[in-house]
Amino acid sequence: MKQIIVVSLAVGLVTGLIGYNATAAGEADAARMPALAEMPGGYRDWPVIAVAHEEGKLNDIRAILGNDVAMKAFRAGAGTYPDGTIIARLAWDYHPLEESRQAFGAPQSFVAGSPKNGVQFMIKDAKKYASTGGWGYVEFDNGKPSATAMPEACFACHSIVKNRDFVFSQYAP
Amino acid sequence: MKQIIVVSLAVGLVTGLIGYNATAAGEADAARMPALAEMPGGYRDWPVIAVAHEEGKLNDIRAILGNDVAMKAFRAGAGTYPDGTIIARLAWDYHPLEESRQAFGAPQSFVAGSPKNGVQFMIKDAKKYASTGGWGYVEFDNGKPSATAMPEACFACHSIVKNRDFVFSQYAP
Repeated sequence: MKQIIVVSLAVGLVTGLIGYNATAAGEADAARMPALAEMPGGYRDWPVIAVAHEEGKLNDIRAILGNDVAMKAFRAGAGTYPDGTIIARLAWDYHPLEESRQAFGAPQSFVAGSPKNGVQFMIKDAKKYASTGGWGYVEFDNGKPSATAMPEACFACHSIVKNRDFVFSQYAP
Repeated sequence: MKQIIVVSLAVGLVTGLIGYNATAAGEADAARMPALAEMPGGYRDWPVIAVAHEEGKLNDIRAILGNDVAMKAFRAGAGTYPDGTIIARLAWDYHPLEESRQAFGAPQSFVAGSPKNGVQFMIKDAKKYASTGGWGYVEFDNGKPSATAMPEACFACHSIVKNRDFVFSQYAP
């Protein structure tokens, strides 16, 4: 199964998005494809939705950014997101700041170190991504869509918060 | 001494910024004053410089945002900042996310809860704030400049990173 998905993905990357909606299996295919071929222009300048620290294997500190459509929806607090919403997840090494440890005599500040765990996006298109809750997912590693970070894995975890339209983050005012 | 500062601050808030540079003690006064009377318009939409978690008494998770001048300087990596640089520090409760704890069976995600510890800004004006390393400081609590968060206290802590032009944050790419 994994091989089939990888092959499908590779073919998809070559052929691009052409024909996505033309096939009977279009929606299921879309769920298996990286939702974007390139990172959205200017995403690094998008406003902050929220920040978080992940423990365990992830062990990162992260910022969740949103495009204009996302920010409007988050700030409205509706709890659902219209088509066109894009949410970006940037993550970095969870890095102890030596200067403040020395000053305080104990661990004090943990800051963003090197980029880690790729840059992830979720894109709302209720029809195109109907089989994954209306959201497409993609992870970029070194600027390229990851062939190993499967949208299904993203969806499986985001299903934990199905009651919030599959979005973990809540707007941090 | 503290009373004198508080009185000076109160007078300053009433009289505004008029006469700042007209007095012989202008620079020293500037260092004791909140650097801004109002929060900069649109600061919440500024891009992210970095994110951090503070342990100890602060116990928050935070985002450091920058205006255009700041972002340009951070991205250039010069390590010093021109006049007009404004850096914003937003902080929130360090809040364990219940959904991911349940899913993982252990603490996993710590997210931004309610706003905490005010919204702080540092503003570069090498001449005006010469006595505090070229930076003016201000904390806003409930949208108003704090009379208890003294610029001197900000400066004392930021002096730890004098070698980085008094700026803790480094750009998280």
